[in-house]
Amino acid sequence: MTNTQVTLVQLDNYGPWTVTPSPRREVDLQTLQSRLYADLSQAIGTRDGYVFFTRFDNMIAVTNGLDLEAHARVQESIRNRYPITASLSIGTGSTPADALVGATGALQQQGSAQDADRRETLLGQPIPDAERTDDDVQIAHFDVIDATGTYTDELDAFASFTHIEAGYAALMRHMHDAHDSLSFFVGGDNIIAVCPGLSDGDYEDAIAHVQDTADVALRVGVGRGASAHDAGMGAKHALEVAREHDTIVERSGRQ
Amino acid sequence: MTNTQVTLVQLDNYGPWTVTPSPRREVDLQTLQSRLYADLSQAIGTRDGYVFFTRFDNMIAVTNGLDLEAHARVQESIRNRYPITASLSIGTGSTPADALVGATGALQQQGSAQDADRRETLLGQPIPDAERTDDDVQIAHFDVIDATGTYTDELDAFASFTHIEAGYAALMRHMHDAHDSLSFFVGGDNIIAVCPGLSDGDYEDAIAHVQDTADVALRVGVGRGASAHDAGMGAKHALEVAREHDTIVERSGRQ
Amino acid sequence: MTNTQVTLVQLDNYGPWTVTPSPRREVDLQTLQSRLYADLSQAIGTRDGYVFFTRFDNMIAVTNGLDLEAHARVQESIRNRYPITASLSIGTGSTPADALVGATGALQQQGSAQDADRRETLLGQPIPDAERTDDDVQIAHFDVIDATGTYTDELDAFASFTHIEAGYAALMRHMHDAHDSLSFFVGGDNIIAVCPGLSDGDYEDAIAHVQDTADVALRVGVGRGASAHDAGMGAKHALEVAREHDTIVERSGRQ
Amino acid sequence: MTNTQVTLVQLDNYGPWTVTPSPRREVDLQTLQSRLYADLSQAIGTRDGYVFFTRFDNMIAVTNGLDLEAHARVQESIRNRYPITASLSIGTGSTPADALVGATGALQQQGSAQDADRRETLLGQPIPDAERTDDDVQIAHFDVIDATGTYTDELDAFASFTHIEAGYAALMRHMHDAHDSLSFFVGGDNIIAVCPGLSDGDYEDAIAHVQDTADVALRVGVGRGASAHDAGMGAKHALEVAREHDTIVERSGRQ
Repeated sequence: MTNTQVTLVQLDNYGPWTVTPSPRREVDLQTLQSRLYADLSQAIGTRDGYVFFTRFDNMIAVTNGLDLEAHARVQESIRNRYPITASLSIGTGSTPADALVGATGALQQQGSAQDADRRETLLGQPIPDAERTDDDVQIAHFDVIDATGTYTDELDAFASFTHIEAGYAALMRHMHDAHDSLSFFVGGDNIIAVCPGLSDGDYEDAIAHVQDTADVALRVGVGRGASAHDAGMGAKHALEVAREHDTIVERSGRQ
Repeated sequence: MTNTQVTLVQLDNYGPWTVTPSPRREVDLQTLQSRLYADLSQAIGTRDGYVFFTRFDNMIAVTNGLDLEAHARVQESIRNRYPITASLSIGTGSTPADALVGATGALQQQGSAQDADRRETLLGQPIPDAERTDDDVQIAHFDVIDATGTYTDELDAFASFTHIEAGYAALMRHMHDAHDSLSFFVGGDNIIAVCPGLSDGDYEDAIAHVQDTADVALRVGVGRGASAHDAGMGAKHALEVAREHDTIVERSGRQ
Repeated sequence: MTNTQVTLVQLDNYGPWTVTPSPRREVDLQTLQSRLYADLSQAIGTRDGYVFFTRFDNMIAVTNGLDLEAHARVQESIRNRYPITASLSIGTGSTPADALVGATGALQQQGSAQDADRRETLLGQPIPDAERTDDDVQIAHFDVIDATGTYTDELDAFASFTHIEAGYAALMRHMHDAHDSLSFFVGGDNIIAVCPGLSDGDYEDAIAHVQDTADVALRVGVGRGASAHDAGMGAKHALEVAREHDTIVERSGRQ
Repeated sequence: MTNTQVTLVQLDNYGPWTVTPSPRREVDLQTLQSRLYADLSQAIGTRDGYVFFTRFDNMIAVTNGLDLEAHARVQESIRNRYPITASLSIGTGSTPADALVGATGALQQQGSAQDADRRETLLGQPIPDAERTDDDVQIAHFDVIDATGTYTDELDAFASFTHIEAGYAALMRHMHDAHDSLSFFVGGDNIIAVCPGLSDGDYEDAIAHVQDTADVALRVGVGRGASAHDAGMGAKHALEVAREHDTIVERSGRQ
């Protein structure tokens, strides 16, 4: 059993702000968004959580190990250093997809993402320390087999991107619909999925599905741990083993 | 006629670096990648260019107005402040897709993205000042009609993301295959496309295609200018007009 | 009794790096240094420590509450995201000055700051959790009385800076020589001193000394706590009281 | 003759903001200030200017080559990405000190640094391009002779800092009072002075003065150029020559 704690980070009334009083320079918005994401990666990462940029104005974090005070501290630091604020909503559940459904629903009940009066909401309850276990988080780290030789060094940069993007899209939907997992592109040819407890066969099926529908060859390393970092680092090491052994599914030794 | 100048920014031998001597913390990699992107946005943006994060280890920039010295300055600043280096390859052409094909091909001829000996290559020739015109760049800024009401406030955060991502994927492929355009997700529900000179009908067809294949309703503002910023700001203003008038294609007054 | 834990952060072989193979652009060095300081502020601050930029290549932190693992994490994150590395040395003692003497001495024994072979040293032992108390850190937050009216709005910007700098220099030396305290300029007209347990009279004497030698009028708020943040926030609130009541020494309620 | 263009960057009403509605976390303020300084270093540096952090809420820049539009762009980017705004005032003159007096006076006439209604003022006129020459800026880059062997590896970190700080304070005042120059500590054991046209004898006197009053041994490299970067890079190369030849004053070849 996994017990994933997910936090939805939603910028408050961000869309209207980007065009008030007139549209703001795109490069400043891009800088603001990517630096905010970088800051959250460090703030949440220093406590062994992961954040994914998703839409940038709605980011999804795996926060097992972060209590309410740590969440409030993140929220305060954004307010102190950026021209915008963020609402945070914590959800928990046996699958990541369920946890996020809970987190999103609670935030929607407090008002719209474009509600000028809904600011810095902090919702939900982290998993109590006493209930945390070393198996709470399962992370699968996928990459494309020989992406450099197949795409980067062969196709033009946009065509390479299109192929990897298509593989990502196929994987994202399959993992969500079939396995209640949340998958995120994290740069290069890498995709990280936050999963409930899945079998090797589940991963093999997912890889076959992406091969069939998007013609992209993936492999995966899988890790489990008490936090996103612990599980994710296990997954990275397992992926290194898969690369060396030319296998498509490997699991970290800790499981 | 457009005359787009595109620069491919490719990190040198980045994949191997991320796992040497053993896999590096994911949050540090995410921070490194997103801050590098933010820095490029400012460095290129201060000279009115645009950068898109694409795969983060391969970024695509529209650099009309940036000469070789400005490119070399960007390259030097990365080397001075990051643990990695970048190669830059400039391409030009009447369509953005062609320009990028040229830029990518030239870089591939210098060696692989994972070639330890290929570092800080700087290739290609910018458009001479004397040949630049006020119509060189066409930018189309798309967003999703009522994304907040339709998705963000209604679906869970991952489902919202999935829908917007599907719309983006459909648009990206159509614009590339039918119109030699490069389209990029830039956060929220926004997509920016760098295009050759397209007609209103071309944009209407693209929007209809995304509606049909991904069931996502888009609208677009279109701008032209001597630089990405000039064209992009025109597109943003046109998009505001489209929102106000509830139309699906608007162009900036300058055209 | 205070029990201050101080960490010396020394960049490894930084001076030679700044001129290898030839002098690097000053603005890139300034950016590197100030961003590294900002990152340390967040990384150490998220665990309630303080960092002072000091010479930028040698920074001094108050790290009560940060264990060896947290220190190692900071060191790793620098290595993963910057072109340089840092050595950390932890010292403890009943006065901040003593703690720093210990931290510096231990690091010097490992090799020179410009020793190419001394990299990423991590030295010293944090205060065990069982020995930490709510009174371990005393922070005094000084500012200049009516700095805006006296200096900023009256003198040219360099003359204002010179006056405030002179006040800071006088305070820094007095607090160090008379009270084994470490004082740091933190911007504006603000100076933060890390002190052993000092009396109101000690602070009044220090303020009189700065008035006499540098003709700068200071006031101070003093706080104590288990961490730099707790003590420092108490000091800030006390300073607000001093501003409102027009007094020169105030202490936070917790003492 | 030099013709220095100086820009005063003053954060608007910053002091009150730092304590509204209650004192903000010190580490967040430190992060905000140092990142803003880093951003200005890049934004102004990309056009070959220099910025010095000075008091952080009042920064001083050498901006030869930056026109009003470039200044306005910097101001806009701060507003778009930070919770605070900045006023900019440009001054010019045959000495840096005079230029700053003019810039400060003009800004003070618009209102107090703590005036809630004075926001984003942009004042002054840059030097017209036609009047710019290759000798407009003179930069002197000082460092401490064998700072590592004398201080860093021998004294505790605060004592090293105190000595270097005392040398800086003595130099700063002498260069200002005797030579209308503006000197800034830039980290490590480095001081950069922006000067009118000074002779070798002037620099020898300044170094003797610091030796006599603060017992700190300095050497200096001097450069001239059309911009701060050009002059400053010349100064850095000259300083390298002084290190190699064990001399105390060297000038770049261009003079």
